[in-house]
Amino acid sequence: MSGVTFEIIGRDGAARTGKLWLGRGAVRTPAFMPVGTSGTVKAMFPGDVHAAGADIILGNTYHLMLRPGAERLDRLGGLHKFMNWPHPILTDSGGFQVMSLAGLRKLSEEGVRFRSHINGSYHMLTPEKSMEIQHLIGSDIHMALDQCIAWPAPEDEVELAMELSVRWASRSKSAFRALEGRAQFGIVQGGTYARLRHRSADSLVDMGFDGLAIGGLAVGEGQELMLQTIENTIPHLPDNKPRYLMGVGTPEDIVEAVWRGIDMFDCVMPTRSGRHGQAFTHQGRINLKNACHAEDESPLDPMGNSSFSAVPRAYLHHLFRSGEILGSMYLSAANISYYQDLMETLRKGISEGCLAQTVTKIKCDWREGEAKNKAI
Amino acid sequence: MSGVTFEIIGRDGAARTGKLWLGRGAVRTPAFMPVGTSGTVKAMFPGDVHAAGADIILGNTYHLMLRPGAERLDRLGGLHKFMNWPHPILTDSGGFQVMSLAGLRKLSEEGVRFRSHINGSYHMLTPEKSMEIQHLIGSDIHMALDQCIAWPAPEDEVELAMELSVRWASRSKSAFRALEGRAQFGIVQGGTYARLRHRSADSLVDMGFDGLAIGGLAVGEGQELMLQTIENTIPHLPDNKPRYLMGVGTPEDIVEAVWRGIDMFDCVMPTRSGRHGQAFTHQGRINLKNACHAEDESPLDPMGNSSFSAVPRAYLHHLFRSGEILGSMYLSAANISYYQDLMETLRKGISEGCLAQTVTKIKCDWREGEAKNKAI
Repeated sequence: MSGVTFEIIGRDGAARTGKLWLGRGAVRTPAFMPVGTSGTVKAMFPGDVHAAGADIILGNTYHLMLRPGAERLDRLGGLHKFMNWPHPILTDSGGFQVMSLAGLRKLSEEGVRFRSHINGSYHMLTPEKSMEIQHLIGSDIHMALDQCIAWPAPEDEVELAMELSVRWASRSKSAFRALEGRAQFGIVQGGTYARLRHRSADSLVDMGFDGLAIGGLAVGEGQELMLQTIENTIPHLPDNKPRYLMGVGTPEDIVEAVWRGIDMFDCVMPTRSGRHGQAFTHQGRINLKNACHAEDESPLDPMGNSSFSAVPRAYLHHLFRSGEILGSMYLSAANISYYQDLMETLRKGISEGCLAQTVTKIKCDWREGEAKNKAI
Repeated sequence: MSGVTFEIIGRDGAARTGKLWLGRGAVRTPAFMPVGTSGTVKAMFPGDVHAAGADIILGNTYHLMLRPGAERLDRLGGLHKFMNWPHPILTDSGGFQVMSLAGLRKLSEEGVRFRSHINGSYHMLTPEKSMEIQHLIGSDIHMALDQCIAWPAPEDEVELAMELSVRWASRSKSAFRALEGRAQFGIVQGGTYARLRHRSADSLVDMGFDGLAIGGLAVGEGQELMLQTIENTIPHLPDNKPRYLMGVGTPEDIVEAVWRGIDMFDCVMPTRSGRHGQAFTHQGRINLKNACHAEDESPLDPMGNSSFSAVPRAYLHHLFRSGEILGSMYLSAANISYYQDLMETLRKGISEGCLAQTVTKIKCDWREGEAKNKAI
């Protein structure tokens, strides 16, 4: 049984728009999932995340298993109740952060043993353990455990990692605690090698996951190679299941990937950049720390429709120059609002069959805005 | 002409409740003013500050003159517009922070020369300059410049500082840019010496300020000596003008000072403590970092009536242990809400003539709550 339904409502070329029906609500696709690393979308009240238009957020299994801990989260009623987010949550497998954050990693067929970056305690992450933790967290979409390797890597190493990921995906599938309204996604690996992506996709599709993710991209290979890999992979994914491009990305990356048939995204960029004074707007990127904004009374994003878009740039400049938390609060919220606006615009473009014009307009606004900002 | 009206609506013993009518709105007294140091009440959206019940906030002239600068603030339309706070603002004179934060201070009859703690630039603060800056900031209550000296200090030194403060108050009065709806307060100094407080008060009252502040307290002298000094000073202040106890304080201090006839307060405590995991609630203080709250599902403040009071302690504990900005956001807002609730409770107690019972109940709730929290 599949616990979830994916309904495609409209198409334009390879792009699709639809709804993924989960137990806790529907996710409008293409969807951008704000990242709620440690049980909080950083510097945002959950109500503002939802008001921005986010139907679903992502939680990091690695962070949550270390703090507050999966068993504690379970005793406290699960992550949704804990962080006051009653809407859908997708959890990653923990594998990516184990490879990027943890100390002293030891990889084996069984899984990966590592030390916490917080207190040095030892942990073992296996496909079964990852599924158990995601169950205790109570998330709505569980990701299979995969092996993430660094880029660039030689083809034979990428092949070994991909094959291990396929075996782990199979074990993840067996260990998944299926519940009505809960989904599990497999993750296609294989670096930038079309042959490996093809083999990985075929193996995972056969396992019958509710959705397929493309992992191991946006790790330094550049947009061209990333898009090429997406194009090489998508023909091997089922049309009737959601496709999730993990860890992507910039607004530019998202637009291009939606064109090519991707349905879901997550990225820390809007919140992390927001905390560092970088805004994403309808008129392109703005670095609020730049001296040119010191007396710039124009609203952050004149074409934006959230209250956060209306904050004057001069004030944001002051907040970032002064190291004030309110700067991070305003800009994280404004960036998440912009990302959600962008997704809504893309969904509309697809359902109205005018995605080409929509994308042209989006890119034109970016270009004109950035030229104007440079001229200040 | 006085640009403002102070209306006393009710009394209970020495305590009074009323309204101070300023151009930008009425301030219900006794009032607590959240501190908006550098143009932001730290970690709070201005809408949440107002929704908590704050009628007025405080801005720090020292911080604002250095960044973004008074002339820049003026060009940008003043502090209210800049920070999106259309309600009243009181600005201090800058004198206190010059003495506590700036480098290389040189005091003279003329004023105080100092170096910015931000970039080392030289500045001169005089009574005239302070009034000019507060005018450019556009605040609703301007404070006279006074000399703040460290505690403890010998009586002759305190006397010299008090006398200089009186001369500066007179110059501040002459330099004040009176506008309809704008007030100016003088500041009584004299340390903990009744004789000096009396002389300072007499001199300032003669100058005809719109309100009188008691400065130089809550600097280490302890609650008993502070309250004694308030009792020694208040008889020399006019009954029909607002009395502002600067930089105070804890909820306990505020309750005692209201009893004795104080009308206005400001303090960084609710926001600063909030950023460090310390909550003020109807049930006393709670340190959310304590391990006992790791699985404490009870709401932060079961007797509170803001949405921030309802956040479970276990979640706040997690946020503070993880160093998440959202912890500061929730607890700053919860603490400001509690302080405003406390003021509303005191105002009600006074206007209903039952302040004694009100205060007994407040203290009883603190005691019982803290005993209960200790028992966890």
